[in-house]
Amino acid sequence: MSTELASPQGLTKSRIEALSDGIFAVAMTLLVLDIKPPAVMQAVALPRELLALWPRCLSYAVSFLMLGIYWVGQHNQFHLIRRADRTLLWINIVFLMTTSFVPFSTALLSAYPLWPSAQMVYGANLIAIGLILLWHWMYATHRHRLVDPELDDRMIRFVIRRILIGPALFTLAVVLSSFSAVASLVLYVVAPLIYVFPGKVDEHWRPNAH
Amino acid sequence: MSTELASPQGLTKSRIEALSDGIFAVAMTLLVLDIKPPAVMQAVALPRELLALWPRCLSYAVSFLMLGIYWVGQHNQFHLIRRADRTLLWINIVFLMTTSFVPFSTALLSAYPLWPSAQMVYGANLIAIGLILLWHWMYATHRHRLVDPELDDRMIRFVIRRILIGPALFTLAVVLSSFSAVASLVLYVVAPLIYVFPGKVDEHWRPNAH
Amino acid sequence: MSTELASPQGLTKSRIEALSDGIFAVAMTLLVLDIKPPAVMQAVALPRELLALWPRCLSYAVSFLMLGIYWVGQHNQFHLIRRADRTLLWINIVFLMTTSFVPFSTALLSAYPLWPSAQMVYGANLIAIGLILLWHWMYATHRHRLVDPELDDRMIRFVIRRILIGPALFTLAVVLSSFSAVASLVLYVVAPLIYVFPGKVDEHWRPNAH
Amino acid sequence: MSTELASPQGLTKSRIEALSDGIFAVAMTLLVLDIKPPAVMQAVALPRELLALWPRCLSYAVSFLMLGIYWVGQHNQFHLIRRADRTLLWINIVFLMTTSFVPFSTALLSAYPLWPSAQMVYGANLIAIGLILLWHWMYATHRHRLVDPELDDRMIRFVIRRILIGPALFTLAVVLSSFSAVASLVLYVVAPLIYVFPGKVDEHWRPNAH
Repeated sequence: MSTELASPQGLTKSRIEALSDGIFAVAMTLLVLDIKPPAVMQAVALPRELLALWPRCLSYAVSFLMLGIYWVGQHNQFHLIRRADRTLLWINIVFLMTTSFVPFSTALLSAYPLWPSAQMVYGANLIAIGLILLWHWMYATHRHRLVDPELDDRMIRFVIRRILIGPALFTLAVVLSSFSAVASLVLYVVAPLIYVFPGKVDEHWRPNAH
Repeated sequence: MSTELASPQGLTKSRIEALSDGIFAVAMTLLVLDIKPPAVMQAVALPRELLALWPRCLSYAVSFLMLGIYWVGQHNQFHLIRRADRTLLWINIVFLMTTSFVPFSTALLSAYPLWPSAQMVYGANLIAIGLILLWHWMYATHRHRLVDPELDDRMIRFVIRRILIGPALFTLAVVLSSFSAVASLVLYVVAPLIYVFPGKVDEHWRPNAH
Repeated sequence: MSTELASPQGLTKSRIEALSDGIFAVAMTLLVLDIKPPAVMQAVALPRELLALWPRCLSYAVSFLMLGIYWVGQHNQFHLIRRADRTLLWINIVFLMTTSFVPFSTALLSAYPLWPSAQMVYGANLIAIGLILLWHWMYATHRHRLVDPELDDRMIRFVIRRILIGPALFTLAVVLSSFSAVASLVLYVVAPLIYVFPGKVDEHWRPNAH
Repeated sequence: MSTELASPQGLTKSRIEALSDGIFAVAMTLLVLDIKPPAVMQAVALPRELLALWPRCLSYAVSFLMLGIYWVGQHNQFHLIRRADRTLLWINIVFLMTTSFVPFSTALLSAYPLWPSAQMVYGANLIAIGLILLWHWMYATHRHRLVDPELDDRMIRFVIRRILIGPALFTLAVVLSSFSAVASLVLYVVAPLIYVFPGKVDEHWRPNAH
């Protein structure tokens, strides 16, 4: 009994998941606050002003999907993690801190979609989330510390490779942003689609292919 | 074990529902940020300025109820869906992305309640949510993919017809907005009431009428 | 099976509670957005400007506690309600719609704490929440429609009287606001305390007095 | 049956935790709204303006971690608390009210990071949260009122000492702010790290040291 508090045994996985779901839900919904109705005087001017909102709408969609991807990634990890400890808990809180930062970096990219420094901050934020998620996984699986002892090593490495896709693409986008802002922007838009569409990899791991 | 991660079996229905509840709760509550206390200098001017907020209050109520309707619709579907797969998961995230957009389209309608382009954007947003919810249902029920094999085909078609009411009404409202902005606005206000009040249809399907 | 969808049996109490908890959490937290750091040029001017925020801080505290009171009230009802139907569901959504409006009426009262029309809007909002909560209870308990058939009638009436305290006090505050704005404001501040402190009534109903 | 409502037996621990998780999630995510994209005319000016956001980013990180710490603290307490009563419920709501205030005090510190009055308000807010958490624990454990009768008194005192670290450090920071604003700021940044890194104390209480 006396040991329950100092170690975070009291924080079951479900509590961390509840806070994570809440923070993801708020961060994803706050993104829309960056898109504001244009101020126009005449009805005839409104359609053009609405069309001019496309960079903000695009940033909104990309960030929403990327947050969705990281949310899926965190929960997939928790599905394989058996228990939490203090270190895992704090890796999670740092992960959520980086996640909550996305509404800012998205607003920055929306305001300056083709400026390298804005693209770099946005990319750096997404890379940071991905690397912390990787750290989370490597901490949990190191010597099977917090996962099932039976968990297959190939599975552990498969997850690592899959997490690395994001940071790799965004690093490329950050580097590209110094040379071609348009190419960098295209990469940001394409990146989430790679995760969203089920690929060959999914077929391979699917329990009952049909 | 090794198959649990690549396919989203780890994301049980309850996790998707938790994120959905969170996003709906935030989107519904953010609507109020669009209604701001008027800036007046004299106490005598405040009542008139408050009354002038009625279009924003009306938009607030309509959007809140419509989001409530779609929230009920999504959960009713999940009640009949037995399991999730990666595609269903991503249809859900796109559904939530469209849902989270409502605070913007509501703010736009509030600002320009009688301008066709604002009415069209608002209508298009609500139509999109409805159609994605329909896609969600058709994907899940196609060849009883993710629902109970025993689920009655009449039930499946009944749900389809019920979901279609919204997009049909909003398409009419969008078309009307070019001809009569007032008529279009009336339709937006009436639409949620059709779902809210229990109708003959409910009587028919109610387990124990009394 | 075929009846599960048209009637909201699919929406178990827990789903409604999850949405309610989310909306209350967001509405209570959004209240703080109404308190903004003052813009001052010199450090020496900041303390005075901070003290000038007291009406906003007071509104914040009163609204936060009142929302807490209504949250407790709704959950106490759900503890006694055995099942939900479509009407109860929609009474709940209207209840949440009125609840979500509190950040606006609070911001209005903060901006004009001593103006009758602001006080009336604030009072009307709190009265509306209380009356909808009463409607919720009366609908659920009418002929023991949705509660345990064994539930004591004295208990049902006790809950009604307890809910009515709020609307009664706020009606008095609204009436007072035309005569003495200060008296009205005092009543708004005192009202939540009546619910918060355990009173004789609690002693009477407490399972094991000690 | 008739006693369930007047006493908050209906509010199980899980309901309080759900509201708490929601409020913490929203408060933590709202912190980012204080960091806004700078308005610049030329791409070359953006990097410098972004670097100038560091005090806001630092405040964001410190507040996020401190809220994380208090969230962990509250849940650790609930892990040891067996049941709730009306008083505990309201201590919780006051705790959440103080927690929800952090986005304001953080915005204030971000705006005036080196001004004593801003530092004092920030410190006072964090001290208040800590002391209410302490009150929560002392109320629950007084004569083992709401905890397991078997709970070790050393454990109860250990939790008290651990909670007191925060208020003690922040009191020191508030006092320091009158003498050296920089030293005070450093203390605010260092404080969360003391909680985050596992220390000797953790080793001592860890169930199975390895």
